[in-house]
Amino acid sequence: MDYDKLALKQHEELKGKLNVVSKIKVDSKDKLSTAYTPGVAAPCREIAKDKDKVYTYTGKGNTIAVISDGSAVLGLGNIGPEAALPVMEGKAVLFNEFADIDAIPLCLDTQDPEEIVKTVKNLAPVLGGINLEDISAPRCFEIEQKLKEELSIPVFHDDQHGTAVVVCAALINALKLTGKEFKDLKIVINGAGAAGVAIAKMLRSFGTEDIVVLNSRGILDPEDEKLDKYRKELARITNPRKLKGDLKMALKDSDVFIGVSVADILSKELIESMNEDPVILAMANPDPEIDPALAKEAGARLVGTGRSDYPNQINNVLAFPGIFRGALNVRAEAITEDMKKAAAIALAGVVEEPRVDYLLPEPFDPRVTKAVAQAVEKAWQKK
Amino acid sequence: MDYDKLALKQHEELKGKLNVVSKIKVDSKDKLSTAYTPGVAAPCREIAKDKDKVYTYTGKGNTIAVISDGSAVLGLGNIGPEAALPVMEGKAVLFNEFADIDAIPLCLDTQDPEEIVKTVKNLAPVLGGINLEDISAPRCFEIEQKLKEELSIPVFHDDQHGTAVVVCAALINALKLTGKEFKDLKIVINGAGAAGVAIAKMLRSFGTEDIVVLNSRGILDPEDEKLDKYRKELARITNPRKLKGDLKMALKDSDVFIGVSVADILSKELIESMNEDPVILAMANPDPEIDPALAKEAGARLVGTGRSDYPNQINNVLAFPGIFRGALNVRAEAITEDMKKAAAIALAGVVEEPRVDYLLPEPFDPRVTKAVAQAVEKAWQKK
Repeated sequence: MDYDKLALKQHEELKGKLNVVSKIKVDSKDKLSTAYTPGVAAPCREIAKDKDKVYTYTGKGNTIAVISDGSAVLGLGNIGPEAALPVMEGKAVLFNEFADIDAIPLCLDTQDPEEIVKTVKNLAPVLGGINLEDISAPRCFEIEQKLKEELSIPVFHDDQHGTAVVVCAALINALKLTGKEFKDLKIVINGAGAAGVAIAKMLRSFGTEDIVVLNSRGILDPEDEKLDKYRKELARITNPRKLKGDLKMALKDSDVFIGVSVADILSKELIESMNEDPVILAMANPDPEIDPALAKEAGARLVGTGRSDYPNQINNVLAFPGIFRGALNVRAEAITEDMKKAAAIALAGVVEEPRVDYLLPEPFDPRVTKAVAQAVEKAWQKK
Repeated sequence: MDYDKLALKQHEELKGKLNVVSKIKVDSKDKLSTAYTPGVAAPCREIAKDKDKVYTYTGKGNTIAVISDGSAVLGLGNIGPEAALPVMEGKAVLFNEFADIDAIPLCLDTQDPEEIVKTVKNLAPVLGGINLEDISAPRCFEIEQKLKEELSIPVFHDDQHGTAVVVCAALINALKLTGKEFKDLKIVINGAGAAGVAIAKMLRSFGTEDIVVLNSRGILDPEDEKLDKYRKELARITNPRKLKGDLKMALKDSDVFIGVSVADILSKELIESMNEDPVILAMANPDPEIDPALAKEAGARLVGTGRSDYPNQINNVLAFPGIFRGALNVRAEAITEDMKKAAAIALAGVVEEPRVDYLLPEPFDPRVTKAVAQAVEKAWQKK
């Protein structure tokens, strides 16, 4: 399939993938007077008396914004807000299609973290949640952290946490096949961007201690002055064996390779140096860190990629619709670590019997959003 | 009709009057790969090469935001962003119902003009136009002016210009009945808020020179140090006879009373002091400056109000859908004075034979949006 050609045609014909539509047919004076003046003053007055009523009388509770500054869009890099819009519209489409959420795509004409925070905060009165998207690291960490501190609605940077949830779900099922446990794993994460950082943190919450993270210059070193505070912190809490060096050093005797980096960086020889039953999640886009067929030849027991044309697609769409659906259903004020963990476990659980080519459910499996949402709701309520 | 009760019931049942819906059913891998990754990268790349293509491949060209800071909502005052949301949703409903525009209701958590300007500018990449709403004067003037200077998409404060367009349309048809001309009129505008200022300016562009504007302290005086620069400027360009004093002074021998003030401020005696065939547009909400029946008894030839239960409703919904429809159709970079004038003339023209109780068309007259939009398009193209 030539998706480029199909997508250009589709986007040109549709001119935008979303419509904002009225739930009411306004075709009489009475209807106009109820949906608009003078009737509309009544819900306004109720909300003015009790701000919380905004959830009773408006769409806030089912509305989120998908917000990007266009600084790290897909594999395309810093292409700016206008060029990022087709992606944010697409994400909003998926929120609507998979979770009946009203999602507004917004691309901001600023890449200054402080101004992004201010802008998003200013929009919060009408939003039930905020999905940050395609914002480059380390700015994404700072922006998300500040927004979480200052807002009492869920703020979720999908490139970080959505990816981490789906990766952990895939690993949960992979471990069922290999018979290993999280606490005993040696895991190598190649790539210390938004996704790599979040995956490392989430794996720790699943009990894995031996995690080695690499950026393009090798294994993260807490003494490296070139690292920002987020990566320094990550270097400090990972790599317990104090390894130094490159991917070869890191991979020797490891159990899992998680690639959120660039195409073809992994070789057969490197996989052969890993522990038995190695798991390879090679998620570089559009081309994975190693061709899945090659990885299999080298002895990989389980292989996943970001692509839909190979088995075991690690696709965020398995997570974000259900996570927000659950959070909105219970008016969660945040998406906590426990909620993300619950989401990963629930997602893995949709696959009753994991197989080598079936670690995760299909995106169109109707059980996915429901299972994830229910798990997220429960985790919030237990808190 | 108890619209308060109806509105509360409706708003509680619907929980928001809008849905953001996908134009695409995403039910197969191919559809997912076309609307989202990997296909979506193709339109992104095209827009990155040529920013203008955002109009070809996204919804920008048909999307506007209805933006308020909740500082001057209906007759309710400064009730804040949450309480303003039912109104902004209602406005977005009308944009959708009357003009097939995708309108996003946004209520901002700031009332600082500079921060509002920054926030709105940051949202501009995804918007084809901006409808400002229910922002108090004089902040609304400053905010609109700065946004107009800095953006090349239409920015339109409806409380000002929408009202002015509909008032001028009503007057055009009123003059057909009284046989008077704009240039010869003596017009009194009671109320120097957002609407009053915009009406005065627009009437000048129709040729009326003798306009007297009053605020709650009387006829505007350019020497009054309590006036901000916008009202001082208005005081300077109006009141050519240099009248001083109150409404009684202003109304003597005048032809038109335009009320954008408070209930019951106009009396029979004052109307009796006016010129023959006086026109009374008493638009205070929810109760007009004078009861229309009383005004008629006092000799008013034509009476209009803001209410739907009297004849001649001066309702902005007659203007804003068509104005934005026209501006978006031709990708106008602004809504110019000529476009607003053209809108007023076109709106008046929908009524083929004005009558005392039929100065303006009904909001549901299907000719309205079309006529206004076409006039606006032509006015932009002629520029």
